[in-house]
Amino acid sequence: MKNVAIIGPGLLGASIGLALRQNAGARVSVWARRNEAARQAVELGAADLGSNDLEEVASAADLVILCTPVGSMPALARQLAPVLQNNPLVTDVGSVKVDVVACLSAVFRGHARFIGSHPMAGSEQSGMLAARHDLFANALCILTPEADSDPGAVRGIAEFWEDLGCRIRTMPAPDHDQSMALVSHFPHLLAASLVEMVMDQNPSALDLCGPGFRDSTRIASGPPAMWAEILHNNRVHVKKTAEAMVEKLRELITLLDSDCPEASMHKFLTQAKAHRDRVRQTR
Amino acid sequence: MKNVAIIGPGLLGASIGLALRQNAGARVSVWARRNEAARQAVELGAADLGSNDLEEVASAADLVILCTPVGSMPALARQLAPVLQNNPLVTDVGSVKVDVVACLSAVFRGHARFIGSHPMAGSEQSGMLAARHDLFANALCILTPEADSDPGAVRGIAEFWEDLGCRIRTMPAPDHDQSMALVSHFPHLLAASLVEMVMDQNPSALDLCGPGFRDSTRIASGPPAMWAEILHNNRVHVKKTAEAMVEKLRELITLLDSDCPEASMHKFLTQAKAHRDRVRQTR
Repeated sequence: MKNVAIIGPGLLGASIGLALRQNAGARVSVWARRNEAARQAVELGAADLGSNDLEEVASAADLVILCTPVGSMPALARQLAPVLQNNPLVTDVGSVKVDVVACLSAVFRGHARFIGSHPMAGSEQSGMLAARHDLFANALCILTPEADSDPGAVRGIAEFWEDLGCRIRTMPAPDHDQSMALVSHFPHLLAASLVEMVMDQNPSALDLCGPGFRDSTRIASGPPAMWAEILHNNRVHVKKTAEAMVEKLRELITLLDSDCPEASMHKFLTQAKAHRDRVRQTR
Repeated sequence: MKNVAIIGPGLLGASIGLALRQNAGARVSVWARRNEAARQAVELGAADLGSNDLEEVASAADLVILCTPVGSMPALARQLAPVLQNNPLVTDVGSVKVDVVACLSAVFRGHARFIGSHPMAGSEQSGMLAARHDLFANALCILTPEADSDPGAVRGIAEFWEDLGCRIRTMPAPDHDQSMALVSHFPHLLAASLVEMVMDQNPSALDLCGPGFRDSTRIASGPPAMWAEILHNNRVHVKKTAEAMVEKLRELITLLDSDCPEASMHKFLTQAKAHRDRVRQTR
């Protein structure tokens, strides 16, 4: 890629810019809604050009990456599509994929080759100032091509993320959204719920928490607007997952009431530990 | 303290030994059930003397610290009490306090001055090999004296933990156990339940987890036997907490079903973030 346009210099967008400008000879242009943010991206070293003019940023690009909240993507895509000149690759970094892919594929048809991406990087921090050139090192990036996606475009997007240090998985968007409800979207809601449950029961107990509680609830410090949008977008799967969790907790309440809770707990925790220990220990 | 006896060189016992021998002129003796473990504690630098003979380790001590699983403490205390010669201070590191304090106070009466402690250090690792001399730096240590505890003994135990780097809180044992159900014991069970719920729903989703899920479930990798004992011991509060969590999740399921889930989620997550951000950011 010679010319890369990043739409939205938040944590992910600015980190991509930093990584690209550190690694290779790509020219990076960043679009931000506010000119001040666009200028700041250049100052931080995340872009060669920063502007609030979509045409100036993206018309000559051969790769465009949408890095805004998913709710802003459709409107931006409709403005972008007609100004693209090189039938570029286009991707996004949204944490939900079914709706985003359906919408953006349709909007870019005839203007660009769109493939959805979800790089699983980031943290409870957000915004440009938290950006890091190595944010994607060893992160998993899930691509969600459609049945009729151009295989060359899929390869191009995969190589782009691999150059940033990502491991790649490819799967249909519906599978992505179901899996993310389980391991990302619902766990976010669960961490927030744990904090709020403690606040309901005994707020002063929060002063007594140790490293375990802090790790368990770290993600509850993430940006609320972004997560509300994700949970709303994937609410059918998130709700189903929450119901499964209620069932699991009911099972445990029954075990705690049994004649021999210690043995039941030991068996349950041993199995959970074995499963948890298998989780890949990279970032 | 000139002579400190540590009963049980696990993660906490061995870390206390390392810290004491690094900081000050205390002579540290360690008791382990297996002579091999006692020898290893000396080799690691966690003790001057290692032995499986309680009398040899503890008779001359002016401070004895019980660092075994809570289930082994009553029997060990009954063996220990008659061999103590100096009316020493005795404490423990158990994560549950009501039963432990009631039992050990009675056993040591007339032999030693017992004050319960709960240093909130440790990690998902366990065992002597995970010991660190700075494990207690900046950790919270909760003391649970009784109404008739000797104030000098409370002060002595507090100073001991402060010298190891702990911050001290004092509260009645029942308050401790209720608060720990909320911020430690139930969250452990919740992390294990999250892993098992995902395994029930779609085991392959675990391959897709990112840093958020890993942090949320880290504690589920902790030692099952120790945690089963804690959950059993504090099962009344843990069960009540699990029921409160089920109610909280039911509220959220209702919000996800509402006309405007995004606004409801935003409000809920904003509040949870504000509460989570207040949690002290030390280790």
